[in-house]
Amino acid sequence: MPSYTPPLRDMQFLLHEVLRVSDEFKAMPRHAEVDADTINAVLEEAGKFAAEVTFPLNISGDTEGCTLDQATHEVATPKGFKEAYAQFVEGGWPALSCDPAYGGQGLPYVVNQCLYEMLNSANQAWTMYPGLSHGAYEALAAHGTEAQKKTYLPKLTSGEWTGTMCLTEPHCGTDLGLLRTKAEPLPDGTYKLTGNKIFISAGEHGMAENIVHLVLARLPDAPKGSKGISLFVVPKFHVKADGTLGERNAIFCTGLEHKMGIHGNATAQIAIDGAIGTLVGAPNKGLAAMFVMMNAARLGVGNQSLGLTEVAFQNALAYAKDRIQMRSLSGPKAKDKEADPIIVHPDVRKMLLTAKAYAEGGRALQIYCTLLLDKAHHHPDEKTRKNADELVALLTPIVKAFITDNGHLATNACMQVFGGHGFIKEWGMEQFVRDNRINMIYEGTNTVQSLDLLGRKVLGDQGAALRKFGKLVGALVEEEGVNEKMAEFINPIAVLGEQLTKFTMEVGFKGLQNPDEVGAAAVDYLRVAGHLVFGYFFARMAQAALRAIADGSTDPFYTAKLQTARFYFAKLFPETATLMRTARAGSRVLMDTDAALA
Amino acid sequence: MPSYTPPLRDMQFLLHEVLRVSDEFKAMPRHAEVDADTINAVLEEAGKFAAEVTFPLNISGDTEGCTLDQATHEVATPKGFKEAYAQFVEGGWPALSCDPAYGGQGLPYVVNQCLYEMLNSANQAWTMYPGLSHGAYEALAAHGTEAQKKTYLPKLTSGEWTGTMCLTEPHCGTDLGLLRTKAEPLPDGTYKLTGNKIFISAGEHGMAENIVHLVLARLPDAPKGSKGISLFVVPKFHVKADGTLGERNAIFCTGLEHKMGIHGNATAQIAIDGAIGTLVGAPNKGLAAMFVMMNAARLGVGNQSLGLTEVAFQNALAYAKDRIQMRSLSGPKAKDKEADPIIVHPDVRKMLLTAKAYAEGGRALQIYCTLLLDKAHHHPDEKTRKNADELVALLTPIVKAFITDNGHLATNACMQVFGGHGFIKEWGMEQFVRDNRINMIYEGTNTVQSLDLLGRKVLGDQGAALRKFGKLVGALVEEEGVNEKMAEFINPIAVLGEQLTKFTMEVGFKGLQNPDEVGAAAVDYLRVAGHLVFGYFFARMAQAALRAIADGSTDPFYTAKLQTARFYFAKLFPETATLMRTARAGSRVLMDTDAALA
Repeated sequence: MPSYTPPLRDMQFLLHEVLRVSDEFKAMPRHAEVDADTINAVLEEAGKFAAEVTFPLNISGDTEGCTLDQATHEVATPKGFKEAYAQFVEGGWPALSCDPAYGGQGLPYVVNQCLYEMLNSANQAWTMYPGLSHGAYEALAAHGTEAQKKTYLPKLTSGEWTGTMCLTEPHCGTDLGLLRTKAEPLPDGTYKLTGNKIFISAGEHGMAENIVHLVLARLPDAPKGSKGISLFVVPKFHVKADGTLGERNAIFCTGLEHKMGIHGNATAQIAIDGAIGTLVGAPNKGLAAMFVMMNAARLGVGNQSLGLTEVAFQNALAYAKDRIQMRSLSGPKAKDKEADPIIVHPDVRKMLLTAKAYAEGGRALQIYCTLLLDKAHHHPDEKTRKNADELVALLTPIVKAFITDNGHLATNACMQVFGGHGFIKEWGMEQFVRDNRINMIYEGTNTVQSLDLLGRKVLGDQGAALRKFGKLVGALVEEEGVNEKMAEFINPIAVLGEQLTKFTMEVGFKGLQNPDEVGAAAVDYLRVAGHLVFGYFFARMAQAALRAIADGSTDPFYTAKLQTARFYFAKLFPETATLMRTARAGSRVLMDTDAALA
Repeated sequence: MPSYTPPLRDMQFLLHEVLRVSDEFKAMPRHAEVDADTINAVLEEAGKFAAEVTFPLNISGDTEGCTLDQATHEVATPKGFKEAYAQFVEGGWPALSCDPAYGGQGLPYVVNQCLYEMLNSANQAWTMYPGLSHGAYEALAAHGTEAQKKTYLPKLTSGEWTGTMCLTEPHCGTDLGLLRTKAEPLPDGTYKLTGNKIFISAGEHGMAENIVHLVLARLPDAPKGSKGISLFVVPKFHVKADGTLGERNAIFCTGLEHKMGIHGNATAQIAIDGAIGTLVGAPNKGLAAMFVMMNAARLGVGNQSLGLTEVAFQNALAYAKDRIQMRSLSGPKAKDKEADPIIVHPDVRKMLLTAKAYAEGGRALQIYCTLLLDKAHHHPDEKTRKNADELVALLTPIVKAFITDNGHLATNACMQVFGGHGFIKEWGMEQFVRDNRINMIYEGTNTVQSLDLLGRKVLGDQGAALRKFGKLVGALVEEEGVNEKMAEFINPIAVLGEQLTKFTMEVGFKGLQNPDEVGAAAVDYLRVAGHLVFGYFFARMAQAALRAIADGSTDPFYTAKLQTARFYFAKLFPETATLMRTARAGSRVLMDTDAALA
């Protein structure tokens, strides 16, 4: 019953009018030829794939779920998932941003970003099957041996094989230092792995010929804790020297989780029973290799919520225009009807605009981050690469936590627009809420993201990375400070930027005395930082819209953008007033509560 | 896997130490003999029933759901539901607060309130079967003829029959003025009803001998809109003159909704195909009669979220003490273990305390409101009755919307404490989130509640009802204004009370010019009012706790209460800073958005 229209216009606006990516690509030899027409043509096809192939499988995938055959350890995915994946492979989509050295198309990450936003709107559960391959590809590309790259990367690029990240165990998720899976070296240089993993997304399925498991485990002599973790690649089927598939490896799905959402994705319990794998990277340095996967995955999780926010918005908007119920408080609007469409009600508009603003802010941030990745990988200037790398590291926890929390607010608001019908499965809205809910949890809970941001990324380098972002804000404030039309968009971020700088120093000092002060402030801090970032992008989007209007454009898209930006600054951004206050409330009200939490 | 312990201590604290209900009851002839021991004994048994009989059926009920036999129109409820209901009836629980004239036990509403809080914690879906009877009972007691009362009230009191509210139709929920179900008068004084209803909770089941449907419909000559609605009682089985059951009436379940939550409750599509019913109250005055049901139901919905908040808190607390993962930021706490229990982390404590504070604030407000109902029904002084009635009318939308929104925040926070395990059905946490989600929607969405509060209850009488509550706050501020120990609890509500008074006048004036200003501010306004109310009760709870400590008590309960109150004022109450700002942002940023919402 829901529908989905790829938001190509907004993507093009961000790519070509706000971020002007083609200008950026001219400086990068690999992408120098990538122009707007090429990007737009790819995105149009990508949107068709999402809307026509995987979106129709979203509700049925949720209803059917996955089933495990206990005898064969094979998992059946919902009807149509396998065929859609075959079409995805045939279309060359997995290869979009992969290295041409391994058969990739070598397009910029920003293009892949937009492809995946649309796939996530269409069907998050399905998208996780190809999506998880991405982390495996990145980890092997960064840390694999030449032989490993040659064996695995072409197949991950083509999509013939998919990847997983086997990290979590029943007793450890956040704290991987506790993990127990063992890897014993064998005389031939391979390793024999034994242990149990849980929560392995896309962990088993019949959509691809082979599954490439990236597994964290301990060597026999490994130091305790997180310094004793190594990374291994363990294929479902052994790969022979000629690249063809051999025997089944002893890595089996033994159970599937019953979950709140993403039912179409197989969340596997995996028994590793003497499976053979090879070491990726140096012994005991698995966490570093894993963080390559993890950082890619964290940006990907933000993108999942961006996709769900967009599709929830589109459907709530359509419903609000269609559903008639009550009259406008300021007098009948649809006089020919028994009642007015509910979009006349201020709070219905607030719920819709909340989702729209969070979608547009999220899209700007996600595309910006992947543009930074393009720079970090392909810009010829080392300083530019390093700068981009540091900025994306700073922004990654914000992407992951802020966009997924916003997705929670947005999908719930859109579901609420439907009244009682929002609670009914057939309308599709409650599925968006359920599917989004995992995004706040996996790949590091949003609390973990906040500690990563405040503890490591901000205070860990004495605020240097934060100042880098602050400089961008400062430059925009400088540039537009005397432009009256921009004042409503510039002033809030100028003020908040100063407040955040001051508060960062405060919490830094308090944290030196008592590290719990950092933990007590971190979640509020991340949302404040998120609003500074979104505010910055809304100001840049307003700037581009005002310029287009000044240049004579009458496209209502630009008026819409200004209206959304105004709404954002009036109704969402002021959350920072409370957040600054609660962040400052300190740790005592949380920690001196042993009686209350007895 | 989850567990539940009835919160008897906190209930007793509120009943006996904060609200001192027995003192209040002494003034009411019907309840003059109801002392603390009686109440406590009943609540202890009630808690046992909830924890031992219906709680064990909560997860299985969610998994099994209800099934409709299309041939017989009968609905099968999940395993054990029927037997639990029989036990409930046998224990006399439906009769607890019913009128002794119809076989009720005549206990105060506050006792029933606590019973139902515990039942909702244990199993919201099951509790809706007896819970819906309550509204039917109240509507018939207030507006039924003597014959109707004699026929239906004893059976609803005993629980042999259950009730429903048949309001919603496919094209109208909020806007009942649009409803189309017809009622034609028959020569014998009965009516023949025809139409289709949807979303009828507990609408069909085999747990009771008969189901008493209260149905809204239109008489042939009825005026258009909400002034042409009448209320009818339509039993599933006809009732003969001697009170025994006759033929099946033509009111059938034709479908069950597939829902996000409360799977164990049958949400029925009901076809009324020439069913015979009798008129309740005057023709075309059905909405007034319906509001008797609705007001009871709205308090009941708040109570559902209170119950879920409490049980979610208990389980998240247990998990946070048990699950070890990472070390405390301020150094290892459980040195004998591989890692610390996650309760050492400030943000985990924040999530737990959020739920605890919302449970305790909600419980105080719910019990207070039912004490007002006891007064409104049974106090000998008319002015006291009227005063209580007006206060409960003011507070009802706050109970419904604020407590259910808080339930959303709280159950999601508690689910988050579990990390990935929170997303897995077996742990039970995601069910609390799903079940709670409907509470924000049904019996009038929370937006509708906010319009009821600001538009009707506050501005509708020029703030008179609000001033009544303001006087209570003022009296407490007066009483404790010079008590240094109370300053931290009193100052915030004194300040917010003034702000709210000022803002109420502002929005009242703006609303005269443009009614959309009321709609634009209402949702934020309700949450501000909610925090003023919760703040007031936290101050009263702190007052009682400080007195007990001053009297020499060393019970850690009182220390816990003060810690929770401090947390509430430091971390939750400051939400009002943002809400006052966004409420003041006005309607233009919402209404001048036609391009954005094109």
